[in-house]
Amino acid sequence: MAKVVIIGAGVMGSAFSVPLADNGHEVHIVGTHLDAHIIDVLQASEPHPGLGVSLPTSVSFHQHDALKQVIRYADLIVLGVTSAGVDWAAQQLSTTLTVPTPIIMLTKGLAIVDEAVCILPDLLLNAQSNQLRASEVLAVVGPCIASELAVRRQTNVVLAGRSQRTVKAVVQLLRTPYYHVHASGDLEGAETCAALKNLYALVVGTARGILEIDQAPNGASTYNLSSAMFAQALSEIAYLVEFMKGKQESVYGLAGVGDLYVTCQAGRNGRMGRLLGMGLSFEEARMEHMPGVTVEGAELLLTLGHTFESLMNLGQLDEARLPLLRTAISMVCYNNVADIVWERLFNTHT
Amino acid sequence: MAKVVIIGAGVMGSAFSVPLADNGHEVHIVGTHLDAHIIDVLQASEPHPGLGVSLPTSVSFHQHDALKQVIRYADLIVLGVTSAGVDWAAQQLSTTLTVPTPIIMLTKGLAIVDEAVCILPDLLLNAQSNQLRASEVLAVVGPCIASELAVRRQTNVVLAGRSQRTVKAVVQLLRTPYYHVHASGDLEGAETCAALKNLYALVVGTARGILEIDQAPNGASTYNLSSAMFAQALSEIAYLVEFMKGKQESVYGLAGVGDLYVTCQAGRNGRMGRLLGMGLSFEEARMEHMPGVTVEGAELLLTLGHTFESLMNLGQLDEARLPLLRTAISMVCYNNVADIVWERLFNTHT
Repeated sequence: MAKVVIIGAGVMGSAFSVPLADNGHEVHIVGTHLDAHIIDVLQASEPHPGLGVSLPTSVSFHQHDALKQVIRYADLIVLGVTSAGVDWAAQQLSTTLTVPTPIIMLTKGLAIVDEAVCILPDLLLNAQSNQLRASEVLAVVGPCIASELAVRRQTNVVLAGRSQRTVKAVVQLLRTPYYHVHASGDLEGAETCAALKNLYALVVGTARGILEIDQAPNGASTYNLSSAMFAQALSEIAYLVEFMKGKQESVYGLAGVGDLYVTCQAGRNGRMGRLLGMGLSFEEARMEHMPGVTVEGAELLLTLGHTFESLMNLGQLDEARLPLLRTAISMVCYNNVADIVWERLFNTHT
Repeated sequence: MAKVVIIGAGVMGSAFSVPLADNGHEVHIVGTHLDAHIIDVLQASEPHPGLGVSLPTSVSFHQHDALKQVIRYADLIVLGVTSAGVDWAAQQLSTTLTVPTPIIMLTKGLAIVDEAVCILPDLLLNAQSNQLRASEVLAVVGPCIASELAVRRQTNVVLAGRSQRTVKAVVQLLRTPYYHVHASGDLEGAETCAALKNLYALVVGTARGILEIDQAPNGASTYNLSSAMFAQALSEIAYLVEFMKGKQESVYGLAGVGDLYVTCQAGRNGRMGRLLGMGLSFEEARMEHMPGVTVEGAELLLTLGHTFESLMNLGQLDEARLPLLRTAISMVCYNNVADIVWERLFNTHT
C-alpha cells in the first residue's frame, strides 16, 4: 500500500483516484486554488461536478493550503493540473517536497525553455529545488477519457519514464482489471504525442464544420476528408516525435494513434475545429461560441505556433512534411480561415 | 482522353465514374448479372439507388451481356465487383480481353491460392488467359466512402501497382481537384491493409455494443476501449502486412490508418461489431438483424479465418501479436461471444 497525493481536482486528477483507491492505496486529492468549490463538493460526498459520479469513499480531499502537510511521506505524487498550472505546481513542489519523490504528470503539453521546445517533465526537472530536480518524473498517456475511467470502463494507457525500474514499480501500483497500464521508456515520444494530439484533433475536426455548411443532396458525410487528415496528422506527429528525439513505436501505439483516435471522437478540440471548418475565424469562434473554454490544442498553438514557424522558416523543421501544422498555425495564430493545400498532403507516404 | 470500362454498377464502381467523367474520359459502366435493375435505372437517367444521386450524363450504361463489345479498345478497365465476384470477373475478362490492358481493382479482399494467402490481384494474374496474365493489375485503396466521392467531396486515395510507369500514367487519368490520387509501388501492402481494415473495424465496433448494454450513471461512452482496440488493430495490420511482404509505410498512411479510420466511423462492419459487442453470437446477429447484408470483414474471416488459425498454430504467424485476430476468429468462425484477453494487448508496443 502506498500513500499517493494527487494535485488538482479536475476531471483527470479525480478520475485517477479510482484505480488507486481500488488497489487499496491511501489516496489524497489536494485541489489547486481554483478547485476550492470542487473540494467542498467532494468533502460533502457529493458527485464530482465534472465526472457526474462520486469518488471512492476511501479517498481524502484537501484544500490547496493543506498541500505541505499532506505531501509528507508521500510515495507518489500525481500532477493533474492544467498545462497553464504546471509552473504553479513546480513552485508548490519546490517549497513542499522534503525528499525526492516519483511524480506522475497527467498534464499534457510542450513548453519553451531557452528557446528550445521541451516536454513538460523537463519544466519540473529544471526547477530550482534540489528535491524536485532529483525526483523522477513519469507520464501517463494514451486514450483515456476521465469520465470513462471514473466508472471503471476498460481503459489502456502507457506509463512512460526514463528509469525502467521506477516505471515497473509504479505500473504495479496502478494496474486494475479495468485499468491496463503498459510500461514504456520513451518519455519524449509519449509526451510529444500526448501534446500534439489535441492540436491535430482540432484540424481533423474542421471536416465536421465543412459538412454542416455544405450539405450533400444524398446526405453524404465528410469522413473521406477527416480520415485523410487523420492519416496525415499521424504522419506529422511521427515527424515531430523524431524531431523531439522520441521513438516511432510510441506514435503507432496507444500514446500516438490510440490517443489521437479518442481525441477525434469527442471533446473540445474537435468542437473548436468544427467552428473553424464552418468558416469562422479563431477569434470569432472563441469569443462568440466557446468563451472561457480551454481548448488545449489551441493553447498549444498560441504557446508554440510561432516557435514551430521559426523552426520551419530556419529549415530545422521541414515544412513540406507539416502541411496541417502550417494550416493550424494560420488558423489559430493568424486568425485566417481554414485553407488546406491538398497537393502538399502525403508527400512522404507515397 | 481514354476509354474506361467499369465492371460492376454497385456504389463504388459507379462513384468511380464521376472523377473519370469530370476528366473528359469516355466512361462505360457494365453491370454484372446481379446489376440488371441498377443499369435499367441508370439508363433512365434516374439517381443511382445506392448513391442517391444521378451519375454524369456523359457516362454510358450497359447490361452484362454487352461486355465483350464494350471492352474493345478500352485503355483502362476498372473492377468494381464484390469480393465474391472476382472469380466471375476473371472468367469474363479471360474470354473478352483481346489485348493486355491495365486493370484497376476496387474490390478488396484476400484469397487462398495453393494453400497460401494471396492478394486479389494475384487471383487475376493466375488466370488461364494470356491476355489477362499479361495485363497490369493496380488497386485503388484508402479512405473513400462511395457516396461522398459521388458528390465530389474531398477524397484522398492511393493508386498502387507494381509498375511505377503505369501507376504514374493512370494517376494522371484519375486526378481531379477533389479526388487526390497518390502513387504507390506497394501493391501487397496496400491490398492487405484494404482487406484487413474491414475485419478490424468489426472488432473496434464491439465497443459500441458494449456501451448499449452497459449504460454508465454519468453517461460515459466507451471511447477508451474503442481507441485502444484501434491502436492494437493497427499494430496487427502492420504485422500482417509484413507477413504478406508489404511495406510498413502503407500501414501508416492512407491505405492503412486512413482507411481503418473511415471504416470505423461508419458502415456494415461496425454494425455487425456492435451486435457482437451486445452479446449476440455471429449467427444470431446475421440471421436476425442483418440477413442478406454482406459484411466484408466477416466474409474475410469466413474465407480465411481457419487459414490464419493454422498459420498461428504452426508458428508461421506469432499469435502473441494477433490477439484481436484470435478474438475475431472466435466470434465469427466459432460463433463464440466476444471475449478479449486484455493482458495480451500491446505486447509489442511497450
